[in-house]
Amino acid sequence: MEKLEQLGMRAKEAEIALRMLTTEKKNQVLRQAADDLQKRADRILAENEKDMENGRKNGMNAGLLDRLSLTRERIRQIALGLEQIAALDDPVGEVIGMKKRPNGLLIGQKRVPLGVVGIIYEARPNVTADAFGLCFKTGNAVILKGGSDAIFSNTAIVDSIRKSLEDCQVNPDALLLITDTSRETTKAFMKLNRYVDVLIPRGGAGLIRSVVENSTIPVIETGTGNCHVYVDETADLAMATDIILNAKTQRVGVCNACESILVHEKVKDRLLPELGERLREKQVEIRGDGAVRGLIPDAKAATEEDWGREYLDYIVSIKTVSSVDEAIAHINRYNTGHSEAIVTDSYENAQKFLDLVDAACVYVNASTRFTDGFEFGFGAEIGISTQKLHARGPMGLLALTTTKYIIYGSGQIRS
Amino acid sequence: MEKLEQLGMRAKEAEIALRMLTTEKKNQVLRQAADDLQKRADRILAENEKDMENGRKNGMNAGLLDRLSLTRERIRQIALGLEQIAALDDPVGEVIGMKKRPNGLLIGQKRVPLGVVGIIYEARPNVTADAFGLCFKTGNAVILKGGSDAIFSNTAIVDSIRKSLEDCQVNPDALLLITDTSRETTKAFMKLNRYVDVLIPRGGAGLIRSVVENSTIPVIETGTGNCHVYVDETADLAMATDIILNAKTQRVGVCNACESILVHEKVKDRLLPELGERLREKQVEIRGDGAVRGLIPDAKAATEEDWGREYLDYIVSIKTVSSVDEAIAHINRYNTGHSEAIVTDSYENAQKFLDLVDAACVYVNASTRFTDGFEFGFGAEIGISTQKLHARGPMGLLALTTTKYIIYGSGQIRS
Repeated sequence: MEKLEQLGMRAKEAEIALRMLTTEKKNQVLRQAADDLQKRADRILAENEKDMENGRKNGMNAGLLDRLSLTRERIRQIALGLEQIAALDDPVGEVIGMKKRPNGLLIGQKRVPLGVVGIIYEARPNVTADAFGLCFKTGNAVILKGGSDAIFSNTAIVDSIRKSLEDCQVNPDALLLITDTSRETTKAFMKLNRYVDVLIPRGGAGLIRSVVENSTIPVIETGTGNCHVYVDETADLAMATDIILNAKTQRVGVCNACESILVHEKVKDRLLPELGERLREKQVEIRGDGAVRGLIPDAKAATEEDWGREYLDYIVSIKTVSSVDEAIAHINRYNTGHSEAIVTDSYENAQKFLDLVDAACVYVNASTRFTDGFEFGFGAEIGISTQKLHARGPMGLLALTTTKYIIYGSGQIRS
Repeated sequence: MEKLEQLGMRAKEAEIALRMLTTEKKNQVLRQAADDLQKRADRILAENEKDMENGRKNGMNAGLLDRLSLTRERIRQIALGLEQIAALDDPVGEVIGMKKRPNGLLIGQKRVPLGVVGIIYEARPNVTADAFGLCFKTGNAVILKGGSDAIFSNTAIVDSIRKSLEDCQVNPDALLLITDTSRETTKAFMKLNRYVDVLIPRGGAGLIRSVVENSTIPVIETGTGNCHVYVDETADLAMATDIILNAKTQRVGVCNACESILVHEKVKDRLLPELGERLREKQVEIRGDGAVRGLIPDAKAATEEDWGREYLDYIVSIKTVSSVDEAIAHINRYNTGHSEAIVTDSYENAQKFLDLVDAACVYVNASTRFTDGFEFGFGAEIGISTQKLHARGPMGLLALTTTKYIIYGSGQIRS
């Protein structure tokens, strides 16, 4: 605990110096860090091999081992990521909405770093460099707490970047890694609100719940997505089928994948047999209500629990509804506030869906898979916020900044 | 606890209907609620008298009794407040930054209500109507938890407004009051993150700390202000004196009042004797370092603890510093992130102060007392945020909204 306090103080100290760095300097550091990671690839790969060995010993499954594994090419990708961040516009320093008040005060909002960002994440070591890059570009110090599975890889990456920072005469405490991955230390980290300005958990539902329940630091919730596609009675059914196939199967393990389909009863006879066929070709298991099972013979019965599930797998639930209102009510009851889509040709229903569905991203006639910082044009992504404060939806560099009011006066006092 | 869950569900239910109300309808309701409060003044005054009686019985001090007390004129002011909120622009519904992506998707951010707002506050019954007005105008349902001292007054005001809502055919659960003011219920309320989207504590440092430590609902911290005025070596000393007098004494019990003064050692001889005199005239007790005490004979010795104090009283600490950098470092160490001012004629030092002081509002040559939603031109204020997420500084209607991405497609799928 003592040690955590120390880390917090060091990050705070580093953060103050970061406020003064020019964009040019920050970009130079990012490019240097990218070069150095590739130069030190041998050492990073050797450390990664230790994690891989432990993973295999502990019976880690193939998917997780693949996420954990680094190669020379993956390190090149990580370095490229830092270079891409260097190429992005720096949002820090912009002044927004400066206006003159009747008393002559000039009041505006200046965009500034958040300060110290905490990130708690699971396995993947590429997040280590990526999170540093995004935080550093926006002038934030960052304290990382990665999973124990990747501790050797994360330590090697952090060591390399900290050396690059030092070589560039920047306080290396701009990047700190908590190497004690015990549960107690993680909990204590969540209480470090004296030093850490925001905590971003990146991982499964369990991790996020634990952070929300235990953190005294303001949290940005990311992640879980029980996303729906609703096929309205006026939908172009070929378009609907393509969108559903894309949203469900283009990549199944991601938070913006479709987990549940709602179908207006007036189009169920024309849509479902063909849709069932196409989903079956992709090995998707279907869990439906009675009407769905009547039209897709091998569909299983959906239980109440299915409507709330984020499968992250080749499984989808399908329900028939009698109106757009029923679809909206169902979505607002079961969704996780991530991404929701309607396929329709009705102007009225499209607007109603956009207005009333409560989610970070609401689509008309497009796949939910577009919910992504790169697809939205931000050039980066630190996560997808499913909460309503500060940032909602894909978060780019802007989400890692705050504003402060700056006020230019000439002696004004309040009467 | 059971009952709290019920309240949460009712608020959530009401919130969904609020999303559909037009601005016109919302304004009509606010004006009706204002009229009705005045019509029901007799009942409200009678209930307020019960609180006053209890307060007197419990030895409540004169200041608190005054804050608790309602009169016909104060009820008129409360009603006027609601009418002023009705006259403000409605921020909900605006679409920001809609842009076309290369694939044809049209992506923009629509401003929407937060959903259900929770407010925990102390004594003053005027907050009850005010908080409702601001939340309702922005389409939010609100759950209030006021102090036990004002329970009769708050209940009477809430009953009146709920009747007005019903008379306007709006679900009265848009305004809910937690009448059980026990500590256990308050703690349980802070855990209601399933139904409540944001929790805003309004009150003293103790209340705010308890909310930050216990809430699983995202919190907007408001309030405490250890605000500084720094007099630079190039300052116009008459201006500096006026600003300090205003910031310290125009109203002492408020969060944007000055609690600590920093003086460049090169101007201390010319500034402090006169400043000491003027502060003494206003009955302000001075606690200073050695240099200060040498120039203001009746100043007491400041302890380390004084630099971190929010007195909210006729007391001020004064410290001499040898540079703007020392002033900035001192402020960043001891301040609460509220409002900070420099008095200077140096362009370089002004910019440095604006850049490096970490606070919601940073002033050059003006009193910290301007940190206020009305002074900033928002026409309203739900509180002053001293945290960095979502909203920082005075919060008007905008702080009670969030955005969601709305995306117009024509069949786009991700490749």
